[in-house]
Amino acid sequence: MAWSRDLDAAFNPGAIAIVGASASNRPVAQYMAPAGLSFARSLKRFGFPGNIYPIHPTANEVLGLKAYPSLHSVPEHVDLVIVSVPAPDVAAVLEDCIAAGIKNVQVFTAGFRESGEEEGIRLEAEITSIARKGSINLIGPNCVGLCYVPRARLAVWDGLTAEPGPVSFISQSGGHTLQFTHYGQGLGIRFSKVISYGNAAILDSTDFLEYLASDPETEIICLYVEGVKDGPKLTRLVRDISPIKPVIVWKGGTGEFGKRAAASHTGSLAGEEKVWEAFFKQTGAVRANSLEELADLVLSFLYLSPPQGHRVGVILNGGGYSVWAADTCGREGLEVPTLSPETQRRLGEFIPAAGTSIKNPLDAEVLFRDVNRFDKALKLVAADPLIDMLILCIHLDILREAGEEQLKGLAGLLQDFASESTLGKPVAAILDSWGGDTLVREERQRLSTLLPELGIPVYRTLARATRVLPRFAAYHQFVRETKGADKSAEKDMQAPLEPRRAGSAQGRSWS
Amino acid sequence: MAWSRDLDAAFNPGAIAIVGASASNRPVAQYMAPAGLSFARSLKRFGFPGNIYPIHPTANEVLGLKAYPSLHSVPEHVDLVIVSVPAPDVAAVLEDCIAAGIKNVQVFTAGFRESGEEEGIRLEAEITSIARKGSINLIGPNCVGLCYVPRARLAVWDGLTAEPGPVSFISQSGGHTLQFTHYGQGLGIRFSKVISYGNAAILDSTDFLEYLASDPETEIICLYVEGVKDGPKLTRLVRDISPIKPVIVWKGGTGEFGKRAAASHTGSLAGEEKVWEAFFKQTGAVRANSLEELADLVLSFLYLSPPQGHRVGVILNGGGYSVWAADTCGREGLEVPTLSPETQRRLGEFIPAAGTSIKNPLDAEVLFRDVNRFDKALKLVAADPLIDMLILCIHLDILREAGEEQLKGLAGLLQDFASESTLGKPVAAILDSWGGDTLVREERQRLSTLLPELGIPVYRTLARATRVLPRFAAYHQFVRETKGADKSAEKDMQAPLEPRRAGSAQGRSWS
Repeated sequence: MAWSRDLDAAFNPGAIAIVGASASNRPVAQYMAPAGLSFARSLKRFGFPGNIYPIHPTANEVLGLKAYPSLHSVPEHVDLVIVSVPAPDVAAVLEDCIAAGIKNVQVFTAGFRESGEEEGIRLEAEITSIARKGSINLIGPNCVGLCYVPRARLAVWDGLTAEPGPVSFISQSGGHTLQFTHYGQGLGIRFSKVISYGNAAILDSTDFLEYLASDPETEIICLYVEGVKDGPKLTRLVRDISPIKPVIVWKGGTGEFGKRAAASHTGSLAGEEKVWEAFFKQTGAVRANSLEELADLVLSFLYLSPPQGHRVGVILNGGGYSVWAADTCGREGLEVPTLSPETQRRLGEFIPAAGTSIKNPLDAEVLFRDVNRFDKALKLVAADPLIDMLILCIHLDILREAGEEQLKGLAGLLQDFASESTLGKPVAAILDSWGGDTLVREERQRLSTLLPELGIPVYRTLARATRVLPRFAAYHQFVRETKGADKSAEKDMQAPLEPRRAGSAQGRSWS
Repeated sequence: MAWSRDLDAAFNPGAIAIVGASASNRPVAQYMAPAGLSFARSLKRFGFPGNIYPIHPTANEVLGLKAYPSLHSVPEHVDLVIVSVPAPDVAAVLEDCIAAGIKNVQVFTAGFRESGEEEGIRLEAEITSIARKGSINLIGPNCVGLCYVPRARLAVWDGLTAEPGPVSFISQSGGHTLQFTHYGQGLGIRFSKVISYGNAAILDSTDFLEYLASDPETEIICLYVEGVKDGPKLTRLVRDISPIKPVIVWKGGTGEFGKRAAASHTGSLAGEEKVWEAFFKQTGAVRANSLEELADLVLSFLYLSPPQGHRVGVILNGGGYSVWAADTCGREGLEVPTLSPETQRRLGEFIPAAGTSIKNPLDAEVLFRDVNRFDKALKLVAADPLIDMLILCIHLDILREAGEEQLKGLAGLLQDFASESTLGKPVAAILDSWGGDTLVREERQRLSTLLPELGIPVYRTLARATRVLPRFAAYHQFVRETKGADKSAEKDMQAPLEPRRAGSAQGRSWS
């Protein structure tokens, strides 16, 4: 039997059923949190507009929602079932889904292949076989499933905004989806679709990638993966998607200890690091190694214009800071070229020589004591043909010391710069302060919101900015080279994504 | 003429003079901040108990302090002079110091060798020669000098505590001393002596190292260095001091761009990275690459007991977190061994199998829902012979969700663990939370203060902990090997520091 993996109904469900007590009425083990109740509670709180059907063998009501003894007895077609019963009972629930004609099922329950135990491996094989037989889009087991789809008013945790955004996240770890949605939200990142897929018994990262590739609401794709079932397929897919939508990949299980942990976590074979290095090289995927890097890369793709190269101009204050900035940029793969003689000459007209450097980093306290000079310096460095990107380390404490008008003047000046600049060079900012008074804290808050709106992402530290900017620049180089290759081989040319997707959509069938 | 570099008077000055206007009454250039006035203001505010003498050719009073027209006219012996006049006037001030019998002089003024200009280089040669002639302990030029000596009530910035501590910092960058004192204070670090020495025309890092080596108030020495005049001397000194007092070295100017910035900053020749790598290998110096690493290493040395090796046991919650923790530990040089079968068996008695891992990292949410189980797990992992160090990722949000008594129970439990533990294995903590309510924030604050008192330093993130713990462990291995080598070659044995210092004290003369 062939069927297409149409996940539209899963991502925009009209009705959701939650199977949170076992068919045999065994209680859900205490450790299964967030279990059925928690899913129901969060969906209600988040304002899920469709019906939520708790399935319970005896209860009439759960959290004020009418409960049903079985999936067959639900009076409406159910688009998504959340399963949170003990592992030995999952198979029976899947059989019920098949009987009720339900296609999308996510299994929260753990204790399958990842346990490393014979019984868990057997149970996973059993539910996989049932899902195959019934053409069920099984997500998991051992996952939180579709965790956060603000447009559909679907969230399985509290504390998340209903405001949707262009970032989607496919994650083999439920914990990472929880962390990234909350952490990212605090940094101003807004999401389209967030999926945790656990052991990947049926649906794997590649299935969600295919879906998101053509999802008009997704512009940036993040992926956390421990193991993958079909490496060549992932490589092919990411290579095709990359030039159109950046794919940021956090690979878990890169070393001996991480691989063992990945086996315990999702039963994954994490694969050789060399293979993954080749994957990154071939596909243009952007590598992240932590939650922070993932978030910082997303900030880069959300706000920065594409750079033409790796050469940064850094504006800051402090000789030691300057040395460290140059060292850190260099270590991470950014170039810090000496500014051109003409730029230096013009900077020298309003920056005194003693205690400063106008080479690069441009290090001069006077720029933070007199924002008009900062403005002039910024424009000169941005116009220097040797510079591809700018990093501004904005010293809020010095601005404050220089006077309220200096501190508050910076925002307007950057606003003008952003609106007038025809250079299109990306500008990143760091807001430096070691505490500061109320005014500094208020201005920091204001700049943190305003600057990204101007296309200037704010990174927590310079070290964090330098870690992601080279990869951001390398991505754009990959895109340029890919497009160049396309042009130079015009007869083979094809829009990298669409035709492939058409082809692969036809082929997406198992039997 | 021979003289010993006795810096006692400089570090405990009875009277300080500030020369902040030039002899020719040229105004101090606006960009010279913090200039003379700022020094005087901060010293007063910090409660410096001795007399502060502003030297000014015409004023009768500066900041309510009686001003004197010259150093000769001051009615008291001056132990330390702070010079903040334009570069061409510094020579004259030094001549005045010689005439007045003053020995300790720090020069804030920039515009010397670091400018790269012929005139600056000439001026530095001139003041160096004058200082030599007059046996002056010249600190700088282009430095903040003795910035922070809480015991002497000496501070050149506001916002620092008068509470002294065991950490000293010798820095070629004034900005780094400003940053590190403020940042470190927020992390609970307390200081003995903080020195910025700039261009090192006379006094170099080695001179301050010699002083701090025998300073009973200094237990941990931090050093930020861009270039050094006498590399073999630094190597010899650090190798001798290391086994007694850890020396944490942040080397600035490691790459092409950083070296150029270092030349602009302090006129330093930053030297080859290979040479510095050999230095770290030979001396047992602990390497830091940023302000954050410097602070985190200090926290390690302040609170952790010495580990016997690099094998960590990690307790946390989350499968993805677990994989990342294992990857990160491995990447940074820590081992994450599988816990011994006996430990696993006993953990398995109270940790359910599904959704957890008892291998290492020990990943189980139930530990943060029931602190008694956390306690049992902690003791079992700590007692495992395969484990040298522990890292606890404490999930405050889960504890909170599990109930106020769980959140608040943890502190007492760790207190008991610390007081009862005879294992002596170092334990590091991370307090994980993505915001949390008032209770979580209060508890976070309480634990941040309490845990270090129990010998459990708190690192901001797991990534930061893993970056410093391997170097901390390597330091202790160096110490063990050094002591072993001393024992095995008993006829050559000498207390590593004292005899050398005696020898070098005799030799410390120029002429």
